Amino acid sequence: MASAPPTRRLSSGDLAPSHEHSLVPIGMATILPEAARHVRQLESELLRYCYGYGYDEIILPTFEYFDVLAPGLEPALLENSYKIVDRTTGRILLLRPDVTAQIARTVAMGMLGTRLPLRLSYRATVFRYEPEHVGRDRELFQVGAELIGSDDPSADCEIIMLMIECLQQVGLPSFKISLGHVGFFKGLLVRAGLSAEGQKLAEQAAARKDFPWLGEILTQERVGKRSTQAILDTLELCGKAEVLSKGRALARGEQPLVQALDRLAHVYELLCSMGFQDVVLLDLGEFRGFDYYDGIVFDVFTDGIGIELGGGGRYDHLIGRFGRDIPSTGFALNVDRLFRGLNLIDTTTIMKPPVLVVGPMMMTKELLTVTRQLRQAGVRVIQRAVAASGQDLVGAAADAGLEAELPTTIVIGADQRNWEQVVVLLSGQPMGNGKPGARPLHKKSMSMSDLLEQLRTDPKGVS
Amino acid sequence: MASAPPTRRLSSGDLAPSHEHSLVPIGMATILPEAARHVRQLESELLRYCYGYGYDEIILPTFEYFDVLAPGLEPALLENSYKIVDRTTGRILLLRPDVTAQIARTVAMGMLGTRLPLRLSYRATVFRYEPEHVGRDRELFQVGAELIGSDDPSADCEIIMLMIECLQQVGLPSFKISLGHVGFFKGLLVRAGLSAEGQKLAEQAAARKDFPWLGEILTQERVGKRSTQAILDTLELCGKAEVLSKGRALARGEQPLVQALDRLAHVYELLCSMGFQDVVLLDLGEFRGFDYYDGIVFDVFTDGIGIELGGGGRYDHLIGRFGRDIPSTGFALNVDRLFRGLNLIDTTTIMKPPVLVVGPMMMTKELLTVTRQLRQAGVRVIQRAVAASGQDLVGAAADAGLEAELPTTIVIGADQRNWEQVVVLLSGQPMGNGKPGARPLHKKSMSMSDLLEQLRTDPKGVS
Repeated sequence: MASAPPTRRLSSGDLAPSHEHSLVPIGMATILPEAARHVRQLESELLRYCYGYGYDEIILPTFEYFDVLAPGLEPALLENSYKIVDRTTGRILLLRPDVTAQIARTVAMGMLGTRLPLRLSYRATVFRYEPEHVGRDRELFQVGAELIGSDDPSADCEIIMLMIECLQQVGLPSFKISLGHVGFFKGLLVRAGLSAEGQKLAEQAAARKDFPWLGEILTQERVGKRSTQAILDTLELCGKAEVLSKGRALARGEQPLVQALDRLAHVYELLCSMGFQDVVLLDLGEFRGFDYYDGIVFDVFTDGIGIELGGGGRYDHLIGRFGRDIPSTGFALNVDRLFRGLNLIDTTTIMKPPVLVVGPMMMTKELLTVTRQLRQAGVRVIQRAVAASGQDLVGAAADAGLEAELPTTIVIGADQRNWEQVVVLLSGQPMGNGKPGARPLHKKSMSMSDLLEQLRTDPKGVS
Repeated sequence: MASAPPTRRLSSGDLAPSHEHSLVPIGMATILPEAARHVRQLESELLRYCYGYGYDEIILPTFEYFDVLAPGLEPALLENSYKIVDRTTGRILLLRPDVTAQIARTVAMGMLGTRLPLRLSYRATVFRYEPEHVGRDRELFQVGAELIGSDDPSADCEIIMLMIECLQQVGLPSFKISLGHVGFFKGLLVRAGLSAEGQKLAEQAAARKDFPWLGEILTQERVGKRSTQAILDTLELCGKAEVLSKGRALARGEQPLVQALDRLAHVYELLCSMGFQDVVLLDLGEFRGFDYYDGIVFDVFTDGIGIELGGGGRYDHLIGRFGRDIPSTGFALNVDRLFRGLNLIDTTTIMKPPVLVVGPMMMTKELLTVTRQLRQAGVRVIQRAVAASGQDLVGAAADAGLEAELPTTIVIGADQRNWEQVVVLLSGQPMGNGKPGARPLHKKSMSMSDLLEQLRTDPKGVS
């Protein structure tokens, strides 16, 4: 079934752009076979790469109790979550809007034992109300990894390297990691004397890079001109090592700020020493937009996609919201956006066209026998019983092959005395206008045993 | 992370049997790494097998609009579905309770083109309220296949053979296919003169094998004694070819009944000719419990699991509820139940223990370099920076290896002048009481280049 039109976008949700008349919920699209195959390959490859780093996959429930998961999620995300009143218990169920919080809850409950560090990976769908967008933006495919129970810089490095190498592994042509430390910006806000509420708002404004709103907040909080300038400047501090020296100037020796810069410098240096200096950009305005991040954070971007493909960071106090603190870090990749970044439009090398085996309806048993033999020989086979027989059979089989646009058709029952004598029809490349009828057709008769023998020596023999 | 206790049951939902105090929604369990690995392998193997038959995977949205999908689902299933009022559109969203109806809707919308037959496979989670059970019964993992656009017996056979061979492929030790045709029972009800409403109720009672209820319905519908007996007898007609002759006696030459038996006989004969006579049992009382089935139906059972592992059947008029009729058939397997049927408790051969690489914190760069070299050589590696150095390092590394219960630990930085000289620690099998401390430990020093060379010639060299 290679009939789905090639598409650069994974989703086909755009088929139904109008809310009122839509047959499929907006933002939750169907992935047709050609794209689905890529998505599954992508998922498997990412998970396999994580496995090589010692990360084991975990499968988490789609639902969580609202009251249980709520401590791990900020109010805005909770507001944008799908909720259901559970008929069985009367409690509110949440369709998971985030996997990291769910893993934190699972670890805190002790379901994964007490041995640390834990290395976990996952592939999961998360659900969020995203009214502005069309596409798969309300039902997001994610692949991610979490390193739980390690607080040293090598852990930050491991997670970032793992993400970078995952992206290289699947062949993402070019991308940049924007690397920051939320402690620096938070430290600036504390130093500027913002209220707790003001800090939260300012962080939200920073995460959205909403400068006018941030300016308003700072004015309302009566932040002085110099501090305001330092805060606004920080959000635009992005580049190579010079960012660190500019940051140090802004820090003016204050401990929380200096500590954040030291950690950032250390991790940056390690990543550069591993050959990633062209991939990693320092960004003191980097904010993941999840309030549980409290250390090194990062996002990944690629040309042509105006939103991050994924990212992650350190969350040393998230698990503590469900129990005791365990220093941890992790990342998640958005599979849909990664798919778009990979621009997987040439699929001919991956989709192996099946061989069509056609026989008369009266010979279904022989048809089933032949297809089984071919499958056992490693051939991908589609079977088709047709109403024709005798002299009409080969013509009907050729029609079926052309209609299905398959290059190889095997006909059984053309020789009525000996069903093990088959006819192989090979169609050439489409000629001229590319219409099915315009293809040349080569025909040869051979015994099943010769055909199978040929396949044993050359598995591509018939296809 | 091989610390999850071996379990015969995939779900760990039983951890929280009480509704009031549960932290995780009942019936929606977490699958821990060891089991998750099996589940993913199982899924992939099933999908790969379907691919060999020409079935291409499709990924469908988790949500559907209630009003759009409702025609494909019977009222009882709709009642047991999770519903959400969509904040964006005000319409009611359904968490899919069934994939076949969703595929029918997708095909009817023309999203898969017009070329028939279509062969589609899927792995998907379906959601249903199932208040009585604990386990993953509210969030079901399914793998299935649909053959759309073919009405001849070879299509019934193809789908049933594909399911049987899938089960053989994944190593299900013994199982039975219960094969029937809903047309026979429906024909009996029509002949007995039941009202349309009475027929529906009688079919529901039959699907649940609820004989007292069925008896009541037949009494209320004033069905004669002889017809009542024929209907009740039919539900117990199960076995080999003799079922067909008993069925013919009950049919008394009436066309719809005879046609159903003819079709059933034909498919049964084909399956027997393919060597499945010991796997397939005829069962005229076989009813899948989905009202869209209207021809050959089947269920698969295995010893020790009191509920079907999966099943399927022909639904020639389901797609028509969304557009025009397209004759089709398909099956679905419940991955959780299949997992239980496979009894996958010996996982030692599948979980490859990673190699632990330990280095002092001051040598994180060298640690990252060595782990990368090992990963590139195909070794599954976990890295660990420790606070120890100098003479304490090897002891700290040995402790880390024992704590993680990993058989191989590689220590870098023990020779401070030459970090490319590593120490390999190999722990033997646990002795006596099996406590970590009771393991013998072998220690050898070697250069990284020798270690990599050794891995090149014998990839199992260090693990």
